[in-house]
Amino acid sequence: MSPMLPKLWFKDFSDTSFVIRGENLTPIAFLVGYISQTDKTKAYVHFVGVDPEHRSEGLGKSLYEAFETKVLDLGANHIEAVTSPANTTSLRFHEAIGFMAKDTSGSLVLPTEASGHKDFDGIGEDRVLLSKTIRAQYPIA
Amino acid sequence: MSPMLPKLWFKDFSDTSFVIRGENLTPIAFLVGYISQTDKTKAYVHFVGVDPEHRSEGLGKSLYEAFETKVLDLGANHIEAVTSPANTTSLRFHEAIGFMAKDTSGSLVLPTEASGHKDFDGIGEDRVLLSKTIRAQYPIA
Repeated sequence: MSPMLPKLWFKDFSDTSFVIRGENLTPIAFLVGYISQTDKTKAYVHFVGVDPEHRSEGLGKSLYEAFETKVLDLGANHIEAVTSPANTTSLRFHEAIGFMAKDTSGSLVLPTEASGHKDFDGIGEDRVLLSKTIRAQYPIA
Repeated sequence: MSPMLPKLWFKDFSDTSFVIRGENLTPIAFLVGYISQTDKTKAYVHFVGVDPEHRSEGLGKSLYEAFETKVLDLGANHIEAVTSPANTTSLRFHEAIGFMAKDTSGSLVLPTEASGHKDFDGIGEDRVLLSKTIRAQYPIA
C-alpha cells in the first residue's frame, strides 16, 4: 500500500489521523484522514488499516469515532470516504456506523445497495462514494 | 499511478494543484500539492506528471512556479518534495529550480549529491528529501 501512504502524510495530517497500539505498543490499527483544503466542512477518510489478527474487535469503529469527534471539533459537518463495490465487508461496516452512499443517479442509498461509480479512480477502479452527516449534540436548555 | 492519486484529491487540493493543457485542451502536465494541515508554513508537492511527448519544454518548471506563487500567497515559507535516488532526471530538475536535499546526516546538500534515506516510504522505497525555502520579494523602499 506504500504508494497510497507516503510517510510524510502521517506528519502532515497527524491531527486527523489515529493509531491504536496493542501489546508492546505495536500498532494494530490506524486511520489516516484529512479536512479538505478547499472545503473545510468536509472531512475525508483516506485509509484505514486493521491488523488481520485483530479484526472484529471494533477497532475500525473506534478509529472512526475518534476521527469524527476531532473533525467535528475542527468545523467539518460531514465525512466522505470511498470503497470498492466488491468490498462487502467495508460496505457493511460503513453502513453499520451510519454512512450512506451516493448512487450513480445522485440519490442517497444504503451502502450495501449502492452501485459503484465506474472507473472512478482509473480504469477498472470502480468506487462506491460514502458520506455521513455529522453534527455536535447540544443538550436542550 | 492510480493508488497515489485518488480522484477526490484533485478536488480537495484544487487550490494548490495545477494543470497545463495543450491542443484541444488535452491535459499534458499537472502538479498536485498541498499545504501541510499540521504546519501551514510547509507546502508539499505530492505528484507531478508530464506527458512523455512534452518533456524538456519547461512544463514542470512552470507548474512549480505556479505552485510556489500560490503557496507563498497562502502563507507557506518552504516547499518539500521527495523523489527516488535512482531518478536522476528528477534530482537534476529540482536542483535547477533551487531545491536542496536533506542528507542522512541532516545537512543540506545538492540533490544530485544526496544519498537516499533508506526504506523511507517502505521496504525498497528509498527517498531523497528535497526542500526549497521561498519568500516574497519585497522592493527596497
